[in-house]
Amino acid sequence: MDVSSQGPSVPRRISDSTIRRLSQYLRALEDLERSGPTTVSSEELAGGGGTTAAQVRKDLSQFGSFGKRGLGYNVAGLGAHLRSILGLERRWRVVLVGAGRIGSALFAYPNFTRRGYDCVAVLDSDPAKVGTQWGSVLIRGAEDLEDVVREWEADLVILAVPGEVAQRVAERAVAAGAKGILNFAAVTLRVPHHVPVTNVNLVMELEALSFAVTQVGKGA
Amino acid sequence: MDVSSQGPSVPRRISDSTIRRLSQYLRALEDLERSGPTTVSSEELAGGGGTTAAQVRKDLSQFGSFGKRGLGYNVAGLGAHLRSILGLERRWRVVLVGAGRIGSALFAYPNFTRRGYDCVAVLDSDPAKVGTQWGSVLIRGAEDLEDVVREWEADLVILAVPGEVAQRVAERAVAAGAKGILNFAAVTLRVPHHVPVTNVNLVMELEALSFAVTQVGKGA
Repeated sequence: MDVSSQGPSVPRRISDSTIRRLSQYLRALEDLERSGPTTVSSEELAGGGGTTAAQVRKDLSQFGSFGKRGLGYNVAGLGAHLRSILGLERRWRVVLVGAGRIGSALFAYPNFTRRGYDCVAVLDSDPAKVGTQWGSVLIRGAEDLEDVVREWEADLVILAVPGEVAQRVAERAVAAGAKGILNFAAVTLRVPHHVPVTNVNLVMELEALSFAVTQVGKGA
Repeated sequence: MDVSSQGPSVPRRISDSTIRRLSQYLRALEDLERSGPTTVSSEELAGGGGTTAAQVRKDLSQFGSFGKRGLGYNVAGLGAHLRSILGLERRWRVVLVGAGRIGSALFAYPNFTRRGYDCVAVLDSDPAKVGTQWGSVLIRGAEDLEDVVREWEADLVILAVPGEVAQRVAERAVAAGAKGILNFAAVTLRVPHHVPVTNVNLVMELEALSFAVTQVGKGA
């Protein structure tokens, strides 16, 4: 999955895989916060994420000096730092465009709310869906996108729409003030540099997997 | 998203982002195959994927010598090469474990079949779902996993199950002969080196996005 930090938007280029490992370290730290220990070693942080202690130290060193040599990291302190780095000290208002299967799977994902993402509105272009409720959220028409983004001062927009309309919806969302886009459509969106886009392309995930399986089959 | 080529399974280390760009180039080539031109330049291939001509040449050079200087690439020839590299010359038999929201969204994804992935079986642990049909596919009980994988000689297993059971299901799938796993559970699976795992973690995608938005907000 790629976060296209299109152009010069991200000051130092932090790789996608680093960011993903930070998410994993944070998950490990939160488990530790619940279970008791106050310090953790690089080795322990590496264990859960299928990486190495050296990689943990390298990843964290990009964001400052956290651990004490021989003493490890303070669990609560490092957790707070990682939440700050990942932008999780705050809540994010998310507008979901597309109330189809992918959209409804996303909407029901319990971890979104738990991690600080509030789906404040859902839109769809199907008149049969508009006006119905998902939990406490009323599904609104796709033509209301600008109003909804402004009304809620939405931060992020999730595009779970067909590829043919994704670019147009993205442009409208950005014009209305969306600050980032999670895109499930299998198209490359063209948006201004200051709006990061994360693409989730499920076919591409399967292709990456079949590539890897093919390599193994070639006798690695 | 990471393809953990866990250990020495992939001979030369091809980066995830390279594989994802190859998928994009292939999509662009297939559009061209339909629309007519027989050759394409690196610049044109780069255009659709938000990358550069130099990157296209670098990516392709890892797999051999394809283009002719000044003449570009043969559309059909390069398309065939990329399909071969990505393991798309054949069809893949896929078993889906988990008939919940994510599972049903995946099952309905039209592009899977089109790209060569056949969902041959669906399993779930909910007795209310077992025995019902999704299209022509009968949903079977989770306890049938080994039988189903062997029966169909399944290549890939998609795990759309809760995190608590994912590791156990993965072990059973691998023991029955699954060659690769697409994992939607938010846990790091421990499987033998010869079984590649691709992880799709939707919360991690949102975290990568909010990280990027936070960086932009810091005034890049």
